[in-house]
Amino acid sequence: MTSIHAPASDLDIAHAARIRPIEEIAASAGIPADALELYGRYKAKIDTSRLPPVPGKAPGKVILVSAMSPTPAGEGKSTCTVGLADSLARAGRNVMVALREPSLGPVMGMKGGATGGGYSQVLPMEDINLHFTGDFHAITSANNTLMALVDNSIYQGNPLNIDPRRITFKRVLDVNDRALREVVIGLGGATQGVPRQDGFDITVASEVMAVFCLATDLADLRRRLALMTVGYTYDRKPVTVADLGVEGALTLLLKDAVKPNLVQTIAGTPALVHGGPFANIAHGCNSVIATQTARSIADLVVTEAGFGADLGAEKFMNIKARSADVAPDAVVLVATIRALKMHGGVAKEDLRRPDVGALERGAVNLRRHVANVKKFGITPVVAVNKFATDTDEELAWLLRWCAGEGVSAAVADIWGEGGGGPGGDELAATVLAALDEPRSFRHLYPLELSVEEKVRTIAQEIYGACDVAFSTPALRRLAEIQANGWDDLPVCMAKTQYSFSDDATRLGAPEGFTLHVRDLIPKTGAGFIVALTGAVMTMPGLPREPGALRMDVDDDGGAVGLF
Amino acid sequence: MTSIHAPASDLDIAHAARIRPIEEIAASAGIPADALELYGRYKAKIDTSRLPPVPGKAPGKVILVSAMSPTPAGEGKSTCTVGLADSLARAGRNVMVALREPSLGPVMGMKGGATGGGYSQVLPMEDINLHFTGDFHAITSANNTLMALVDNSIYQGNPLNIDPRRITFKRVLDVNDRALREVVIGLGGATQGVPRQDGFDITVASEVMAVFCLATDLADLRRRLALMTVGYTYDRKPVTVADLGVEGALTLLLKDAVKPNLVQTIAGTPALVHGGPFANIAHGCNSVIATQTARSIADLVVTEAGFGADLGAEKFMNIKARSADVAPDAVVLVATIRALKMHGGVAKEDLRRPDVGALERGAVNLRRHVANVKKFGITPVVAVNKFATDTDEELAWLLRWCAGEGVSAAVADIWGEGGGGPGGDELAATVLAALDEPRSFRHLYPLELSVEEKVRTIAQEIYGACDVAFSTPALRRLAEIQANGWDDLPVCMAKTQYSFSDDATRLGAPEGFTLHVRDLIPKTGAGFIVALTGAVMTMPGLPREPGALRMDVDDDGGAVGLF
Repeated sequence: MTSIHAPASDLDIAHAARIRPIEEIAASAGIPADALELYGRYKAKIDTSRLPPVPGKAPGKVILVSAMSPTPAGEGKSTCTVGLADSLARAGRNVMVALREPSLGPVMGMKGGATGGGYSQVLPMEDINLHFTGDFHAITSANNTLMALVDNSIYQGNPLNIDPRRITFKRVLDVNDRALREVVIGLGGATQGVPRQDGFDITVASEVMAVFCLATDLADLRRRLALMTVGYTYDRKPVTVADLGVEGALTLLLKDAVKPNLVQTIAGTPALVHGGPFANIAHGCNSVIATQTARSIADLVVTEAGFGADLGAEKFMNIKARSADVAPDAVVLVATIRALKMHGGVAKEDLRRPDVGALERGAVNLRRHVANVKKFGITPVVAVNKFATDTDEELAWLLRWCAGEGVSAAVADIWGEGGGGPGGDELAATVLAALDEPRSFRHLYPLELSVEEKVRTIAQEIYGACDVAFSTPALRRLAEIQANGWDDLPVCMAKTQYSFSDDATRLGAPEGFTLHVRDLIPKTGAGFIVALTGAVMTMPGLPREPGALRMDVDDDGGAVGLF
Repeated sequence: MTSIHAPASDLDIAHAARIRPIEEIAASAGIPADALELYGRYKAKIDTSRLPPVPGKAPGKVILVSAMSPTPAGEGKSTCTVGLADSLARAGRNVMVALREPSLGPVMGMKGGATGGGYSQVLPMEDINLHFTGDFHAITSANNTLMALVDNSIYQGNPLNIDPRRITFKRVLDVNDRALREVVIGLGGATQGVPRQDGFDITVASEVMAVFCLATDLADLRRRLALMTVGYTYDRKPVTVADLGVEGALTLLLKDAVKPNLVQTIAGTPALVHGGPFANIAHGCNSVIATQTARSIADLVVTEAGFGADLGAEKFMNIKARSADVAPDAVVLVATIRALKMHGGVAKEDLRRPDVGALERGAVNLRRHVANVKKFGITPVVAVNKFATDTDEELAWLLRWCAGEGVSAAVADIWGEGGGGPGGDELAATVLAALDEPRSFRHLYPLELSVEEKVRTIAQEIYGACDVAFSTPALRRLAEIQANGWDDLPVCMAKTQYSFSDDATRLGAPEGFTLHVRDLIPKTGAGFIVALTGAVMTMPGLPREPGALRMDVDDDGGAVGLF
């Protein structure tokens, strides 16, 4: 099998792959059968309370896969995460993957699967991309039960004095549904509720999702749910889930969902796929529980964070690694010849043409990401995800450039080969070498800085902004954050993933720009303050030709046309 | 164990019960292990394509459990269904239960569990009452994906010429959320959709749920989904799912949910719990697939239909038994001393006081239900569900009354005893005797009657109405139904369950009343025309003190305060 292969869809490849009963995968990872709660033949939840401690085993090392600034060309970060783990397994290492669960809404739109691609996928991909084990449905239920309870409290006499104009929590659906972005609810008269302006987000944008992914266990989940702010009273005091007294009910709705989901890669490497918060309005990493469970089982855990390193990796370091002891031992930056050329000014339709000049111009994007990761005390490894159109000259240039920058790099041919072939061996060896290098992880900022200072630190240190401009509403919100005692929370930036700046068209490594903070949203259960820059979409829409039009089942009930 | 027992909640009893691994239950029922798709330890979906044919086995006989007109006192129909099945198993019969799945929304409100009660429950009750195997979430997803596609089609140029004012399909959530009954969506300007008046129903009121429960297999599900009408064009032509071209995607979203769910009763009788359409806006029975699967496995299938026999049993006979060969071989009418006394004019708070006079007055309700069931060619058996407050005199009076009416009856003490004790033995023997009686099942009306005539037939023959008044909108709808060629569909009545009339306060057996049909809703995928009488709630609200306030998890992650 080579990378010059007949085109096959990811679904075709997944269907042709040999999938093993999940009990076998569990056994190979040392997970006892009585800790498994099977969901069909190829998926299982792990009851972590039944995992026996392994005497003398140190927690597995964390390898965080991040990327240069993404482009419409697609960089294959999940593919690299899976392929790297398979290659580490090929090298004889005891390794697990930890990935986010995909959102169902975009699947019906036009997005590719979020389960890797080619021969570097997690299986069963159609289940994982559809309902999987129901975690997102449980989160949707918990979120919407909460909102029904909020509006019911207002309807039943409003004992908490909630101001219907200041409810900040929204209902959610795991559907791309533009028509629900802005709605008016509670119409129909006195017996139908209290009218108010509202809107729906997609489930992955729910704070319940962020809380779910940052909680260290069921008790911490309950504690965080209680801390969520749903809105404000008429006299502007925050109203929390604890004030409503329903954190127990929400925890009950999530008690099974919090158990991490075990699946397998095409090469048979065990993978935990669990949780999936948006990478803009939230922190974009799989659950802490999955990462920690994987660390308790395996020696190496390969995981990823959403978008480029300016967003996903920064949040992994400053948010997730503050919730739990999951600081990375190595960071991989996925780069592609195609994406570098786009950052060097080449249009998507011209990417097949060799162009070392554009590569050189675009490398400034990768250079800034490398420098950024070093600010957390870790020197990253560059993984060049090989595409069939890459020329030897371009690949050789990029490896030379990396060497010149003092950063290890390896070409990974893992789309076409997966863990079954040697295409990722060099990357695996490079990452293993990096794990032996000295490092001294540090957060980018101390929590004692004010929220305003934290935003400025990220904008200047990571994005390269020369200044930050806060809008009038954002300034008012900063004052409220101080007054409510939330100034010591970390910041979760919501920014376009395509540029270091807040302007998606400014590729490469823009300088001298001002970052505009439009608004700040306290997420007191997740434990961070979202800083909104530019337009942030929290409820996607469907395209003119939705993917749903191609989908079907075959005569055996199998998925057709999923990707 | 007797019926005078220390009060224990249904959840306490369920937790104390011995629950067996679902593989054991399957093996005892003759279901091969490779037809099971496990969902945790105690639930499994059955892949019906892997069930081997049993040579020479006749399809199991269907025992339909229905009831007199329900009262707020609670009659325990599900409890009787479970208890009867357990008692039949005790009598050495090869029996399975087929029940509806409960809706999650009302669980957070104030409803008791829908999984039976006392020692006649299906287990694991907390799972079944919460997310279970995710079927309702899949139905919610399919419904809302469809509606996102509808509004997207309008937004993307409206090629189907859909009139946004004439969309009849709604979004759904499995939440009791009064504030979503009447909403305006698509606000926010030109990039956010097209504004229109809309509303949300609860998931169990979705036509997708009705289709799911009437489909005989995946292909029939796809066919019915394609036939669903979502609204009308500007020139008043129906717009179907087939016109949108998304029946494949909806089927894909439901492909696993259609597999029936195997669980067990406290006594270890196998139970299929699958599907759960509303009994007002839909037909209120578990899925055809579950009933037929149970018939292929067991000799006797005990199943139930929602509300009293005027609604649930009538729809079972005229709708479900037309979709598939599931006509009942016996019908059980559950009655209680308490409910009869309420129909005889006693207030709920006075029900503990013995009152044979009220019993006699209330028996007219039971008499009409008995006569109604006979119109389908089956003489029912009366099951008197014993409560601790019933006196021997009252029970004896009721049995004498039944004998005088020429109908078999038995007292069932199954709440306190379940299938573990002899409390249901007499009922089981009476039902077995009834199965040996001659019967000749017939539908109440031929499909060739017009929809108007079908409504009149049900109103006069079953409800005892002297006339039917159609509102002006209903008359207009009758004309549309004729014009669209839907006049040969059966009718699904939406009427209060508390009275034979459309006035919930008229208990007993009212006569001389006119039934008011407010509107008619064609459900062209389910294949019936809903006739709305009175106010029909399709999105419940939460009470002042929602059940959610009591709920929590314990230190082991178990449910607390569920019921």
